[in-house]
Amino acid sequence: MHRVVIVGAGFAGLSAARALVGKPVEVTIVDQRNFHTFQPLLYEVATAGLDSGDVAYPIRAIFGKADNVTFRFATVTGVDWDRREVELDGHAPLPFDSVVVASGATARYFGIPGASEFAFPLYTLTDARRLRDHVLRRLEQADSDPALAPGGPLTFVVVGGGPTGVEVAGALAELLDVAVRHDGFTFERATGRIILVDGLPRLLTPFKESGAAYAAKTLEGRGVELRLGRMVKSVTDACVNLDDGSEIPTRTVVWAGGVTVDGTLASRLDAATGANGRLAVNDDLSLEGRDGAFAVGDAAAVPWGPDSDHPGETCPQLAQVAIQSGKHAAGQVLLRIDGKPTEAFRYKDKGIMATIGRRAAITELPHGPAIHGTLGWLAWLALHILYLIGFRNKIIVLVNWSWRYLSWGSGPRLIVGEEPDEDEDAAGHGTTLLG
Amino acid sequence: MHRVVIVGAGFAGLSAARALVGKPVEVTIVDQRNFHTFQPLLYEVATAGLDSGDVAYPIRAIFGKADNVTFRFATVTGVDWDRREVELDGHAPLPFDSVVVASGATARYFGIPGASEFAFPLYTLTDARRLRDHVLRRLEQADSDPALAPGGPLTFVVVGGGPTGVEVAGALAELLDVAVRHDGFTFERATGRIILVDGLPRLLTPFKESGAAYAAKTLEGRGVELRLGRMVKSVTDACVNLDDGSEIPTRTVVWAGGVTVDGTLASRLDAATGANGRLAVNDDLSLEGRDGAFAVGDAAAVPWGPDSDHPGETCPQLAQVAIQSGKHAAGQVLLRIDGKPTEAFRYKDKGIMATIGRRAAITELPHGPAIHGTLGWLAWLALHILYLIGFRNKIIVLVNWSWRYLSWGSGPRLIVGEEPDEDEDAAGHGTTLLG
Repeated sequence: MHRVVIVGAGFAGLSAARALVGKPVEVTIVDQRNFHTFQPLLYEVATAGLDSGDVAYPIRAIFGKADNVTFRFATVTGVDWDRREVELDGHAPLPFDSVVVASGATARYFGIPGASEFAFPLYTLTDARRLRDHVLRRLEQADSDPALAPGGPLTFVVVGGGPTGVEVAGALAELLDVAVRHDGFTFERATGRIILVDGLPRLLTPFKESGAAYAAKTLEGRGVELRLGRMVKSVTDACVNLDDGSEIPTRTVVWAGGVTVDGTLASRLDAATGANGRLAVNDDLSLEGRDGAFAVGDAAAVPWGPDSDHPGETCPQLAQVAIQSGKHAAGQVLLRIDGKPTEAFRYKDKGIMATIGRRAAITELPHGPAIHGTLGWLAWLALHILYLIGFRNKIIVLVNWSWRYLSWGSGPRLIVGEEPDEDEDAAGHGTTLLG
Repeated sequence: MHRVVIVGAGFAGLSAARALVGKPVEVTIVDQRNFHTFQPLLYEVATAGLDSGDVAYPIRAIFGKADNVTFRFATVTGVDWDRREVELDGHAPLPFDSVVVASGATARYFGIPGASEFAFPLYTLTDARRLRDHVLRRLEQADSDPALAPGGPLTFVVVGGGPTGVEVAGALAELLDVAVRHDGFTFERATGRIILVDGLPRLLTPFKESGAAYAAKTLEGRGVELRLGRMVKSVTDACVNLDDGSEIPTRTVVWAGGVTVDGTLASRLDAATGANGRLAVNDDLSLEGRDGAFAVGDAAAVPWGPDSDHPGETCPQLAQVAIQSGKHAAGQVLLRIDGKPTEAFRYKDKGIMATIGRRAAITELPHGPAIHGTLGWLAWLALHILYLIGFRNKIIVLVNWSWRYLSWGSGPRLIVGEEPDEDEDAAGHGTTLLG
């Protein structure tokens, strides 16, 4: 039986594996986590709106009924192309006939001093939980010593004005509202500051101008300060420095400045890279010169493809691209088994969405209308719940959200980090690159 | 205004605080965690049936509407009785007129070599999550290397035949069933062993003989091996040694051998201790010679009280005792403010319950019938859901359980520990003593 190893169980790897269920192949998914993470909602975990289990799903449970899919809980250390084996950390290597690399990305710090050390990325569940613990501890610190409140603990800086940055900033504003209104914190709401910084002159670059303007107006209406057209020069444990010479004292810098692919991935795979460290792939998503190897999702420089909206360009690192490219690679594996020629990938844009908080979101359909406000938010909500894997998670997310929306009664505002300042240890902020 | 400091937000502390809501006192709850833990369901978290947020509730959310209750997120280091201040780690001390010590207990290892170092206690949410990660990692290890399966990774030893031990053993058996049936693990179910050890000749000592026999029969029917009348002599990182000379190779020892009060609590409080390290209290739950100070719950040697079922005896360390004693102490604070004499505590036994797993539990009412089996389980289920604090949690636990019960679709079988072997670090297994 033809053996397929899929490296990574994010949107891309999962999509590839699903397309191979019941096909004449033996699939092994390798991941260093035993669960899939629904990344678009990580900001909700980070701001105590949802709990870990709401956005994570055990990989084994997803494929429990698929006889030809197995899971290996391990970290990939490299690929031996001669022996055709995926090498694992502390486990026997996995031989393959085809391999799909879907190992994802990591936060992009642009070499800004202190950013990787002191800022909080938001790409993995661990990132989200660490940020939640940190933010909730800052609220407690401000409450315990009111003299501190105007300074560091209640100043939150979000770097990046894309969807993640806008979502985090909006959700942090709501968290501060809840803290003062429902959680008995004694500081004044006005002492809590959320500052969103982006080097570009407007928010949400991939969206239309009207959406960006709506987002800016809504965020400002909710008390978020926008510093657009300003670059971050450096981050320390006590402040952020901007290129206009201003310094923002803060203990909390959320890094939503985009993602990149870890530079060592390509060297471990002995593969070529395209823009932003992403693995260079052919039109059919295969790796150049590597028989039966494909790269998909955030890890790969996925082309829009011929006859697409943007032929010759590279797709953005989005969930939809990951899902479509994973499925495409699986299709190519099957075509090759049948001795048929492979086909070029073509990305089908299904639209983009960003939420700013309760009853405020932007939904833009390709060649269609832009929907702002409550209707856009309902569309966003429906789509995200539908996409969440597994019926159980859908119900729980729905219950969580409904309850939170109706009452503000209780999000999972739990500080579960074990050490008082575990979240502030410099080490371990980064994400790992493979699997 | 009369200032009351409550140390600890477990059942006892929470119960005391609730009884003081709206009364002419200023209450401050101090805890080193920002959430209350519903301890009776920790075994569900440890065996991936429920997620952390299902059994934990933010303390601030509980008292959000109570104007006279505030929360301080801090660790208590001692009490200055002359200045009448509770001393905190890294925070200004809290002056008090009355203080209620409800700081809980910690696992009791009876001085058995290696137990505190290598066994997994189950008293805090952190304990439960660490055990869950560890158990799920053992399943993955066995799957990854089938040669290992008959040995360590799939042998789980539970020490203690009380309700917690019985519950954990039953839930582990169900987890193994699910792993093989629904999660695609490739080892044989029969290679997974669960061994329950207790020094006493029967299970569930506080229960009737018939309930113990029912529990033993049900556990054995679900594949749990009972080693009763055997004492654990030592625990290492690779085995458990019993007093009959037998050695059980295992990487996983769950410690359900009861609780004790950390020996340093009494010295930090400069207070006398009764049996099992618990703080000695008078009939009204006040601390001897300490004006306006009370000790309640697991931390205190709570007397059954005059006219109770067991006058002259000390109550067991149970949730009901904690709830009733916390409420009683709050009442005494109010009586003293009114210049009235305090009253003796009297424990009202409301019955005991233990669950062995799906559709199998024992409910014993005082002076009433013992209910075993499905009916006992439904009674157990209803009571636990009703007791869970907060409407939201109730719904979610209900949804979780219903779904799991109907489908086995997906419990939160997530390994969220950040380091591959974080759970195996010897340090940090113990619980902390105050707050």
